[in-house]
Amino acid sequence: MSFNTFGNLLKLTTFGESHGAAIGGIIDGFPAGVSIDLEAIQKELDRRKPGQSKIVTQRKEPDTVEFLSGIFEGKTTGTSIGFVIRNTNQKSKDYSHNTNVYRPSHADYTYDKKYGIRDHRGGGRSSARETANWVVAGALAKQFISQISINAFTSSVGEIEMNKDYSQLDFSKTESNIVRCPDEEMAEQMIDKIKEIRKQGDTIGGTITCVAQNIPVGLGEPIFHKLHADLGKAMLSLNAVKGFEFGSGFEGTKMMGSQHNDIFNEDGSTQTNLSGGIQGGISNGMDIYFRVAFKPVATIMQNQATIDSEGNATEIMGKGRHDPCVVPRAVPVVEALTALVLADFYLLNRTRKA
Amino acid sequence: MSFNTFGNLLKLTTFGESHGAAIGGIIDGFPAGVSIDLEAIQKELDRRKPGQSKIVTQRKEPDTVEFLSGIFEGKTTGTSIGFVIRNTNQKSKDYSHNTNVYRPSHADYTYDKKYGIRDHRGGGRSSARETANWVVAGALAKQFISQISINAFTSSVGEIEMNKDYSQLDFSKTESNIVRCPDEEMAEQMIDKIKEIRKQGDTIGGTITCVAQNIPVGLGEPIFHKLHADLGKAMLSLNAVKGFEFGSGFEGTKMMGSQHNDIFNEDGSTQTNLSGGIQGGISNGMDIYFRVAFKPVATIMQNQATIDSEGNATEIMGKGRHDPCVVPRAVPVVEALTALVLADFYLLNRTRKA
Amino acid sequence: MSFNTFGNLLKLTTFGESHGAAIGGIIDGFPAGVSIDLEAIQKELDRRKPGQSKIVTQRKEPDTVEFLSGIFEGKTTGTSIGFVIRNTNQKSKDYSHNTNVYRPSHADYTYDKKYGIRDHRGGGRSSARETANWVVAGALAKQFISQISINAFTSSVGEIEMNKDYSQLDFSKTESNIVRCPDEEMAEQMIDKIKEIRKQGDTIGGTITCVAQNIPVGLGEPIFHKLHADLGKAMLSLNAVKGFEFGSGFEGTKMMGSQHNDIFNEDGSTQTNLSGGIQGGISNGMDIYFRVAFKPVATIMQNQATIDSEGNATEIMGKGRHDPCVVPRAVPVVEALTALVLADFYLLNRTRKA
Amino acid sequence: MSFNTFGNLLKLTTFGESHGAAIGGIIDGFPAGVSIDLEAIQKELDRRKPGQSKIVTQRKEPDTVEFLSGIFEGKTTGTSIGFVIRNTNQKSKDYSHNTNVYRPSHADYTYDKKYGIRDHRGGGRSSARETANWVVAGALAKQFISQISINAFTSSVGEIEMNKDYSQLDFSKTESNIVRCPDEEMAEQMIDKIKEIRKQGDTIGGTITCVAQNIPVGLGEPIFHKLHADLGKAMLSLNAVKGFEFGSGFEGTKMMGSQHNDIFNEDGSTQTNLSGGIQGGISNGMDIYFRVAFKPVATIMQNQATIDSEGNATEIMGKGRHDPCVVPRAVPVVEALTALVLADFYLLNRTRKA
Repeated sequence: MSFNTFGNLLKLTTFGESHGAAIGGIIDGFPAGVSIDLEAIQKELDRRKPGQSKIVTQRKEPDTVEFLSGIFEGKTTGTSIGFVIRNTNQKSKDYSHNTNVYRPSHADYTYDKKYGIRDHRGGGRSSARETANWVVAGALAKQFISQISINAFTSSVGEIEMNKDYSQLDFSKTESNIVRCPDEEMAEQMIDKIKEIRKQGDTIGGTITCVAQNIPVGLGEPIFHKLHADLGKAMLSLNAVKGFEFGSGFEGTKMMGSQHNDIFNEDGSTQTNLSGGIQGGISNGMDIYFRVAFKPVATIMQNQATIDSEGNATEIMGKGRHDPCVVPRAVPVVEALTALVLADFYLLNRTRKA
Repeated sequence: MSFNTFGNLLKLTTFGESHGAAIGGIIDGFPAGVSIDLEAIQKELDRRKPGQSKIVTQRKEPDTVEFLSGIFEGKTTGTSIGFVIRNTNQKSKDYSHNTNVYRPSHADYTYDKKYGIRDHRGGGRSSARETANWVVAGALAKQFISQISINAFTSSVGEIEMNKDYSQLDFSKTESNIVRCPDEEMAEQMIDKIKEIRKQGDTIGGTITCVAQNIPVGLGEPIFHKLHADLGKAMLSLNAVKGFEFGSGFEGTKMMGSQHNDIFNEDGSTQTNLSGGIQGGISNGMDIYFRVAFKPVATIMQNQATIDSEGNATEIMGKGRHDPCVVPRAVPVVEALTALVLADFYLLNRTRKA
Repeated sequence: MSFNTFGNLLKLTTFGESHGAAIGGIIDGFPAGVSIDLEAIQKELDRRKPGQSKIVTQRKEPDTVEFLSGIFEGKTTGTSIGFVIRNTNQKSKDYSHNTNVYRPSHADYTYDKKYGIRDHRGGGRSSARETANWVVAGALAKQFISQISINAFTSSVGEIEMNKDYSQLDFSKTESNIVRCPDEEMAEQMIDKIKEIRKQGDTIGGTITCVAQNIPVGLGEPIFHKLHADLGKAMLSLNAVKGFEFGSGFEGTKMMGSQHNDIFNEDGSTQTNLSGGIQGGISNGMDIYFRVAFKPVATIMQNQATIDSEGNATEIMGKGRHDPCVVPRAVPVVEALTALVLADFYLLNRTRKA
Repeated sequence: MSFNTFGNLLKLTTFGESHGAAIGGIIDGFPAGVSIDLEAIQKELDRRKPGQSKIVTQRKEPDTVEFLSGIFEGKTTGTSIGFVIRNTNQKSKDYSHNTNVYRPSHADYTYDKKYGIRDHRGGGRSSARETANWVVAGALAKQFISQISINAFTSSVGEIEMNKDYSQLDFSKTESNIVRCPDEEMAEQMIDKIKEIRKQGDTIGGTITCVAQNIPVGLGEPIFHKLHADLGKAMLSLNAVKGFEFGSGFEGTKMMGSQHNDIFNEDGSTQTNLSGGIQGGISNGMDIYFRVAFKPVATIMQNQATIDSEGNATEIMGKGRHDPCVVPRAVPVVEALTALVLADFYLLNRTRKA
């Protein structure tokens, strides 16, 4: 069993606490002979890093990845790829007030009860800092399955919600604004909303939509590794996620079969795509699209009642530097996990026919 | 890698096509010394079986499970538990018209493309018949973690939707009606809706809500086996599922942190439970609740345009005996998968402290 | 974790007690589109079955395998392959005297201590009857990698030991005698020895050598799934096995590097093959050969002192029908496990290069 | 699948090439709350490190381990433990002559054929440098199962072979000499032999015996994770290993059942221990002992005929600094792997009873 391993044939195993010496991981099963563009990897990390804009945490950390093995003269060698990202800007004293206090809706209480011990500095292992590891691995996976294009974007912030039809969007605009919404008008509203919420010392939730295109038919294993099940599990592994839906999603529950069925064209494509590109757990070549729900960040800059580890009532107020909305920085993470899942099934698919 | 294995430490591996000789499975990692009530297992199977009421498929099949190993003199022995359920009422000729025709929004096309070969009888391995295996394993798991109570129920059919607050429900009433909704008034509306849809030769979607209570604190592994991630993956493995949310779910994305945070009581319980009983991927002892979205069944008794395996346009009309709404029969399956996930983490948790 | 699963990508999961209703298994990851010769599978089972000659147990059991899924119109479909072998000749009363008595050098004591419960009939899950499952799976694997030839044979019985140089052997003669030794003169001596030992109510050990030929270069994963490590683990999983060596084996420890190194020919083959066809955990295309040590069967037809489950001294004498030497019937099992390991790595190797 | 992961519930995943920036690993599943003595870990590394005596390689490398996560204030936290060992003394130019030349009986040829690419510096991933990672993990495991004592020692060098009866040995003397043999007289002969061989520019094989004592009854899973099968696989993962035997081993094949059976004492212990402490794959509480065969190191300081990657005949002569006999430095590695296997099963055993 692997508590810290993601993937089946292409595996990422990770370690690292928010305020330890470093975080990092090992990527196993990556095929040999893939040319690696290290700058492209760092660029993905930069999309996730703190301090990149005024609507995210102001903590500054370079998040530089160092590869320690598995890449030789610019190519993967087929051996395991080890990497570390040093933690350079830990202000552990920002958390010293938390040592014995449980932050509401955080993992403090549950870690303590589960393990009987907890690294309280910055959330320890429960910190979303871990997702930098995922971005590294996902960026490598993207280079392996470069024919597939994966585009995630912020599709709602609080009640500000985009139309679900993504067909008119220009994904190249996602990076043109700090909230990562390809509809620039909506983007502005979202940014304003986040700024307003931050002023109140509060936080807000949102959703990310992800679209994967140019998918080969046949990805996914049809019983316990359905493509959407593995994607869903990946997304539900991301901090603050409360829900996942693909294709018609929850709306689809209100439809009738005669409305919902995707009728075939003669080339095997379908006229509609309520299936979200996956039928029977297997990709059918149409776009894969899904939506991920993020709750508001639990750390707020307001006074909250809570308890300490002895069960005594006390109060807490967020210190440190936190995101008012997790969604903009989670966009590259959603893409990274999607790339990992697709690359895994892509490799696996080579073994399914005689 | 296991395409047909579910679980980490407590594992279910399955086989079987809808119209083959039998379906079945092997449960591995089940602890020794658990007294097994075989009748209770059969009773769970009966809740799932076809032909049980007038709003489900009229196919009659007894779904009798035969245990072949691992239980001796009424107790588990710690060895693997093999079981089979013979297929007794396959009318393969109901499917002979499908041999070369791809049913819209089914797995026919994707299986053919993935494997280059397909057992077309009754959907083969993609049939929801597989879920009978899951019910057997889940019923065993329930007996191992009998202190935990797990109650799923139909929470919507099409647009007919229950209030999300489950606190006033009497779960003992779920089995009192054929749609498995504990609110009897809503149940009647749902039943009427399904009957109406069936008359049209159509099908309809719906949702199931599941509530697990009396949960020990500490279940779930906090990075890649978060409790809700494994639950979500389990639910997304169920045929026709399009979405999963837990706790505040998609609604939670519209809230602010100051509203969403669950404030502690001095005993460690929380005043609200928007977290859905899980914080940082680990159970906190509060009720776990989640909602699962099911699309309308793809097989409808109406004429539909489609293609055959050569890409020629043709038409298809459902024959055989199918469910107009998958939700009522899926209720015991949701419970079974929930039991499997919880039992798995329950066992695993014994290994997390020195 | 899988206690009852063998293999990595191609997986066999098994169940079954010697005197339960049936034994069986599920083969997962087997590629689609392989034509299956069912008679060839039954023929392998017949090589292993009891009662086949006068030097093995006289228990008669047909060991007929029934496939329940995964094979359709003579070909594998890529879905999991379920199978059962019914137990038809269990004389559980032969074991009634064992209920509370621990047979020396058997698994009775350890099962009881480990699980707190034990199916004592015929050794329960610890019986070598389990290996019939392995033969089924191995026979399927052989058909997938039919270009590789795998030949095991009895290379010693007690002190009667063949020369280690297998190059002059005609493997087609292995099946020409009941001890399965391709050197017919040695075979006769071995048979006489076993008959003599049986007359004394005693048992005797021996070794099996296995040679796999026409191996593609590149099988095996070089750190924790070295080809010889997985082969060794497979063999050590076989009942009564006490040792495994490949290539130069224990003899090689006495050599110097200048003697032991295999010098290359220009085509990449080597002049000698002390490496046993494996270098750095990866096949180099030369013959793979290894030797497996089997202890004498623990059940003897002589009176032995022992204890019961209360720790009281008592005596025991074998009843039932047992093998005086396990080696002849283990030959097809060694081949089956070898085929499973090689097929697994063969599939896996498709994923190792971009 | 994990090519670079060892263990089931307690897992070690590793990375690193001999001449890359660093080697390292992630230990997952290690229970929380274990006090860690970091000096003891470094001490184990020092037993393995190069340059420690005049009969091992003269390469000097400090092999200092840096823990990056999972240990907080001297205790494990239950999260994954990441560590790195920087490579500090790589003389890659010692290997520049090897770029296109295949060293006989090395992994050069097989890596190239398998991956189509190879990090040729110092053997890359195939170097025994990897075993430093294993020593780190094993040293942690030892601290978790500190009640068990594990003692490995050099039991033969070439033809110089100790008596197999270990009962009179004083294991505290193993570290008193540089060959790590607790019989000091034998040790001297072995040391002389290695010195003589080295002078010839040659290498020599040997065996290590390992004894594990004070073992709880019940470790090991009886079908595909038999205790001795997992131990055997571990040992066969070690560079240069050609064979494994436990208990009576290959000698046991020559015995009769009446001689080989271990008769019980009334307390469940046995009068003899030809079983090697394992019956039916499960520990019975008696000493576990086994023997591991190591071939002579392939790199010799003599001229050898070989080929280059184009298949041209050429010659090669070892440069760099190599071990004339791998056995003395492998002793702590054998102990480390044994500790990992036992700790894994020890944890797992907590889940086997209701």
